[in-house]
Amino acid sequence: MDITEKIAGIRAEMAKEELAAYIVSNTDPHNNELVAPRWRSRQWLSGVKGSAGTVVVTADWCGLWTDSRYYDAAEEALKGTGIELMRASDFDVPTIEEWIKSNLAEGSVIGFFGGDVNVEQGKKWAKSLEPAGYPINSDHDLVDRVWKDRPAEPAGELFLVPEEYAGKSITAKIALVRAELKKLKIDAHLLGRTDESCWLFNFRGTDTPELTTPYCYTLITPDEVRFFIDPAKLTDKAREIFAEASVKLEPYSAVSDAMKALPKTTKLLTVPAHTNLNLGKAAAHCIEIPGKAVVTHIKGVKNATEIKHTKEALLQDGVAMTKFFAWFYRTLDEGGEISELMVSRKLREFRSERPGFRHNSFEAIVGYAAHAALNHYSVDEDSDLKLERENVLLIDSGGNYLQGTTDTTRVIPLGEPTQEQKDDYTVVLRGFIDLMSAIFAEGATGAQLDAICRHNMWKVGRNFKHGTGHGVGFGLEVHEGPQNISARNTEKFVLGQLSTIEPGCYRSGKHGIRIENMVHTILHDENEFGRFFKFENMTWCPINVDLVEPSLLAQEHLDWLNEYNAGVIEKLSPHLEDNEVTWLTRECRPVKA
Amino acid sequence: MDITEKIAGIRAEMAKEELAAYIVSNTDPHNNELVAPRWRSRQWLSGVKGSAGTVVVTADWCGLWTDSRYYDAAEEALKGTGIELMRASDFDVPTIEEWIKSNLAEGSVIGFFGGDVNVEQGKKWAKSLEPAGYPINSDHDLVDRVWKDRPAEPAGELFLVPEEYAGKSITAKIALVRAELKKLKIDAHLLGRTDESCWLFNFRGTDTPELTTPYCYTLITPDEVRFFIDPAKLTDKAREIFAEASVKLEPYSAVSDAMKALPKTTKLLTVPAHTNLNLGKAAAHCIEIPGKAVVTHIKGVKNATEIKHTKEALLQDGVAMTKFFAWFYRTLDEGGEISELMVSRKLREFRSERPGFRHNSFEAIVGYAAHAALNHYSVDEDSDLKLERENVLLIDSGGNYLQGTTDTTRVIPLGEPTQEQKDDYTVVLRGFIDLMSAIFAEGATGAQLDAICRHNMWKVGRNFKHGTGHGVGFGLEVHEGPQNISARNTEKFVLGQLSTIEPGCYRSGKHGIRIENMVHTILHDENEFGRFFKFENMTWCPINVDLVEPSLLAQEHLDWLNEYNAGVIEKLSPHLEDNEVTWLTRECRPVKA
Repeated sequence: MDITEKIAGIRAEMAKEELAAYIVSNTDPHNNELVAPRWRSRQWLSGVKGSAGTVVVTADWCGLWTDSRYYDAAEEALKGTGIELMRASDFDVPTIEEWIKSNLAEGSVIGFFGGDVNVEQGKKWAKSLEPAGYPINSDHDLVDRVWKDRPAEPAGELFLVPEEYAGKSITAKIALVRAELKKLKIDAHLLGRTDESCWLFNFRGTDTPELTTPYCYTLITPDEVRFFIDPAKLTDKAREIFAEASVKLEPYSAVSDAMKALPKTTKLLTVPAHTNLNLGKAAAHCIEIPGKAVVTHIKGVKNATEIKHTKEALLQDGVAMTKFFAWFYRTLDEGGEISELMVSRKLREFRSERPGFRHNSFEAIVGYAAHAALNHYSVDEDSDLKLERENVLLIDSGGNYLQGTTDTTRVIPLGEPTQEQKDDYTVVLRGFIDLMSAIFAEGATGAQLDAICRHNMWKVGRNFKHGTGHGVGFGLEVHEGPQNISARNTEKFVLGQLSTIEPGCYRSGKHGIRIENMVHTILHDENEFGRFFKFENMTWCPINVDLVEPSLLAQEHLDWLNEYNAGVIEKLSPHLEDNEVTWLTRECRPVKA
Repeated sequence: MDITEKIAGIRAEMAKEELAAYIVSNTDPHNNELVAPRWRSRQWLSGVKGSAGTVVVTADWCGLWTDSRYYDAAEEALKGTGIELMRASDFDVPTIEEWIKSNLAEGSVIGFFGGDVNVEQGKKWAKSLEPAGYPINSDHDLVDRVWKDRPAEPAGELFLVPEEYAGKSITAKIALVRAELKKLKIDAHLLGRTDESCWLFNFRGTDTPELTTPYCYTLITPDEVRFFIDPAKLTDKAREIFAEASVKLEPYSAVSDAMKALPKTTKLLTVPAHTNLNLGKAAAHCIEIPGKAVVTHIKGVKNATEIKHTKEALLQDGVAMTKFFAWFYRTLDEGGEISELMVSRKLREFRSERPGFRHNSFEAIVGYAAHAALNHYSVDEDSDLKLERENVLLIDSGGNYLQGTTDTTRVIPLGEPTQEQKDDYTVVLRGFIDLMSAIFAEGATGAQLDAICRHNMWKVGRNFKHGTGHGVGFGLEVHEGPQNISARNTEKFVLGQLSTIEPGCYRSGKHGIRIENMVHTILHDENEFGRFFKFENMTWCPINVDLVEPSLLAQEHLDWLNEYNAGVIEKLSPHLEDNEVTWLTRECRPVKA
């Protein structure tokens, strides 16, 4: 079935249901970031991969909205499909709702499937379209009708995390959540994000290599904890542990009836972004308590054990990266051939040798030269490039270890760098150091921290179209809330959170730069003006200095860089072979003004 | 009637209506920032002045929530009233809703008056309280029943602004608004903020000296423009101009019936923050179109004529300030006595001599020594302090001229400054210059700009608890949206907006520092990374250099300061007497590292 046939199939089903447009995203019932193959509906329909992207099909038109990270990749993938690329990050491109209002007649019915679309998104579309005369119909799963060989739901067994790694027992976590619900006068809370259940019950998923969290729900009340999951995923040991913590086990599919059976007087907290529309409807009779995702906020603050182990994971990850780099340059110097795909595989190999490694924390981004400017480029057999002794290589990768989740980006030169490459690299490095070494008042928001990183980049006419950083889970998702460092994020940073800092600079057709570490929010000082926080660096991985243009850095940046790289040598050397130490020592040599 | 009697009166009325709590704010039917005396209900009830503050009365308790700007003033005013001060900016103080849920029994009915509370606020209270078991009753105006000598609604005549100052005719503005409504498929838009009608029809109010905008509404549709205002405010000339622009005049009180009479199919835009609950109810049968305040956004982008005239207003304002400063130091040097109140009056006198001056754009903040640390201190006969030859004086003031609205803050030393005063002043000045000279990418938000100002302040453990800046109207309100420079503002800055930049540093019981200029967002550059904006300085008023500690500034800050003060001398001198030029030249002397 090619893309044209799939679109024709959707159109035939639209005609049956009298829908003028049908919206297809890659979202699963939990609005997880990483979705199992079964729910990659947009990818199936359009051929466009990546985390963001929404297709709108009408009787005579089809378009895919995606953000600037995916422009180049989507343009390539859409060639010949007849699907128009809608560049959603551009200032003059209409939103899906605006496009519908401008292009379809009033009275047209707009469809999407409420089982895959979360309440927040569904309400946003409805609020914009229905008053303007475009009724919504969210009842039909047209993709399911047309997708004949659709993959089954995954069924991997739970992986149980020992308490010595989790730092807190299941019972203690349940008590923490209940105390918060009691404070907020909430009778019941549905945990819609699957990683919330993983955190609460100290387990991980094994559904697919990169799916950290299995499909499941938890409903927590003052008296009960009900865990909805496919029984096939439960080992005897798991059943024993859940029984000890008085957690009731129920089939995954029973959650909808459980919501329907809640008493009308239930003060219920469901998080609109984490709950699909159909489940929202099942609970529509309850009293909706608006509020923040309680578990997301508790989970975001890491305990001391989680921090200690994440440091260990990042140390092991730095060792793996350094062993890879040493192998990489040795191989090239000996005349060996290396491609992007080989880099990705070799990196995984080095990581898998480190203690506690479970799987990659996300699909590695290995971008050579112009490929690195494709923001979330994902290498495959078709796109794979052989590396030459020129330009730069960007590697954004991480591991999911028993000890924690890692996420690191480095850029290295393959030949003599050009002045433009050095300037771009140094401007990014300067912004990176500005935020790594920032001090900020309690209450500072992600948007404020974002500007500390960009301020000096803007001064020299550089900018990048992605966020500056994101929260990171403990052995869970590599992107985790509540905090986020970006232009419109108003969440306050609090002590104990783990985040990334990852500014970039991308020249289409030329090269891409990004430098990324993980940081831990800690207390800096307290005085009559309040408390001040700072970031503790967590990542130890060499920052290349051949690409540094010292004249673009102030002395404080040079000092930071030299101290950091000295720390890398000190931390990693005990775990390396002699030839690797030799490589690392040269790579991390001090830079002078 | 003293405060205890007033509270008792409210409680008696609460008992009649079976209300367990009653909420009283200083809000008028339009949610204007400056409200006529008639609507200063919280001030009447509690004695606490200032723009922010909400009283909650229960049968046996009374509390006033206010933010950190008003802590000290409120604490003073509440002494002996039995009203508890709730410090709303502090991290551990419950919100009004949280307090109610913790302290009142479920089932308690919470009251406030829907004619004075806007839809956004009313819905926020209802959304939090009703699901938790606290029904809302917004029908009763209890303040009106108890406040026997309540002032009447103001009735000043309209002041018409010639088109050569407004830069655009009424007809052209109506066409602009209609084009935007058409694009958004909106049938009718109610202008709830009174300054929106002022802008649209090129008039100002004369209700009270500081009330720039009279109470009125405008309802705009593709076919009609209906203007609701007290007919007593309309001169013959005004009637003529409205007739020319085909604007229908109707009594102010007719707006509610006009909303009720709209057809059910009307796609209506009302801005929840600008519309009171009662009016919202009157239009509840229409199709609500959610969206931004269309006129606020159009009005926020100043036209070239408005910018040209605002520059002229700020020049005249700088002349008035400089004449004042020269008089001030001469008087002190001659052994004269000056108090805060005298400063305020004398400043107004100097401003009133400038061409185009109409009235102060807000009540001047003149704070000497510890008074300046009371963030929005307002001097009166009781608080008035005589100035000594020590410490510093903070003056935050502005004029409303035919040519535009001004807002300037300066701090000057009255004796030999202490090192702490110099350090605080210089840290504020550095943050001020950081943002005055910033370059930022198109799309940058208020929260991001805020951090550019605070970044270097945070580094040295300073912070201030108010926003860094706000939009400014053209001859209208001194605080105007949509943009705002503060931690949680996600509005994008666009070309043509006028804003303030005003960081501060306050040491309770000692001194307060704030430096404030107005700026205009202009284009800096455009390259492959997008467009970059910067601020054009609009204010010319000496920045004192005796308080500068040069070792805390980088060379780029010193260069900015010296260039700025040289500009002040150049711009203002032609309008000054010789002795004033002599004073200004010394005040603005270059600072060396």
